[in-house]
Amino acid sequence: MSEYVYGKNSFFEALDNHRIVMAYVLNDKAIKDRGIPYKIVDRKTLDRMSKSGNHQGYLAEVKEFRMSTVDEMIKDHHGLIVMLDGIQDVHNLGAIIRTCECAGVDGVIYKSHNSVKVNDTVAKVASGALEYMKVAEVGNLVNTIRKLKDRGYWIVGSDGSAEKLYTELDYDMNVVLIIGSEGKGMSRLVKEECDFIVKLPMKGHVTSLNASVAAGILVYNILSSRK
Amino acid sequence: MSEYVYGKNSFFEALDNHRIVMAYVLNDKAIKDRGIPYKIVDRKTLDRMSKSGNHQGYLAEVKEFRMSTVDEMIKDHHGLIVMLDGIQDVHNLGAIIRTCECAGVDGVIYKSHNSVKVNDTVAKVASGALEYMKVAEVGNLVNTIRKLKDRGYWIVGSDGSAEKLYTELDYDMNVVLIIGSEGKGMSRLVKEECDFIVKLPMKGHVTSLNASVAAGILVYNILSSRK
Repeated sequence: MSEYVYGKNSFFEALDNHRIVMAYVLNDKAIKDRGIPYKIVDRKTLDRMSKSGNHQGYLAEVKEFRMSTVDEMIKDHHGLIVMLDGIQDVHNLGAIIRTCECAGVDGVIYKSHNSVKVNDTVAKVASGALEYMKVAEVGNLVNTIRKLKDRGYWIVGSDGSAEKLYTELDYDMNVVLIIGSEGKGMSRLVKEECDFIVKLPMKGHVTSLNASVAAGILVYNILSSRK
Repeated sequence: MSEYVYGKNSFFEALDNHRIVMAYVLNDKAIKDRGIPYKIVDRKTLDRMSKSGNHQGYLAEVKEFRMSTVDEMIKDHHGLIVMLDGIQDVHNLGAIIRTCECAGVDGVIYKSHNSVKVNDTVAKVASGALEYMKVAEVGNLVNTIRKLKDRGYWIVGSDGSAEKLYTELDYDMNVVLIIGSEGKGMSRLVKEECDFIVKLPMKGHVTSLNASVAAGILVYNILSSRK
């Protein structure tokens, strides 16, 4: 099955990474000397191909996104893997992958069923980060957690009912950070596997942050606290 | 002009805050004893009224959102005001307001022209936070910054070219945190007013975080570092 990306950032990231199989553009000004096959089409065609997405005049058929394996993400020292437990929103998945790429996280893991998957909207929201980030789909989060524990990782979850604040943990270890789903948080089985559960302080009336914002705060705190 | 909110969270927040003028619902199960006027309508009507938004069966005409003034946000000690310099995306505005409400920020300020405004999409993304958050529209950011300086605030901006990391500043003061626009960052005039400019570490290929994620990281770091 063909895979498409659209929008300026995603298009040129795919171009720089030699992933473009065929480009579809309104004109060839920006790409004619880039050595890729392309077709000039009208705006309606781009609207249709992107399902009315914000294509900004650029759409490309790309080689399928290469998924990584969990083994490729494992490090000996100060590893950080982000595991998504049931994220449902493609914008959140894209924003989390973008944040993880910016922060230098080693990889993102999500469950292959009952979750969102990497697709062209995710690629667009991730602003090109998908090209560089190791992303793995696994069948069973608990099995993957146990495997990572065996390889020297500590499992850190986030939950509003925790006693410890997210800033009170010493992250000087290999960490798997679990991000629960929007609304429901971590599933029970995953929560039971956590070595540590931390919370973000909530001082207002609204009781939860957007999942991608929470992920950003937790990831950047872990990395900043290590230096 | 009438203002509408839709989606379960926004609807019930508006209900709890006595803002509903007229509710439009698929059935009255959840609201018939709540003392508000309502009409039972079909799904197509809700689709149309919400402009195909994710209404979840709940839509309401509400009293207009009450904007705050900058004066109402000013505190003597450990104040934190978030100022948005040109945010263009309604989802980012909603997510930032939600984050600020969760974190206990004193207020959010944005420019009345050339920016997004508070509307029903913002209310939905903010998950009810708009009911509680002080939000002010101002005509001129620089004038507002100068006024806040006179009232004892220090101005902190974020920019990739800064030398200081965001974790290296002592936030034990009244702070106005400037969040620049998606893509372009802070405008030149606003940047010149900053007392401090800090950066978020970027270790990957993608050179910027989503604006609402960056705001979350900066806000939570300021509040966590103060305790």
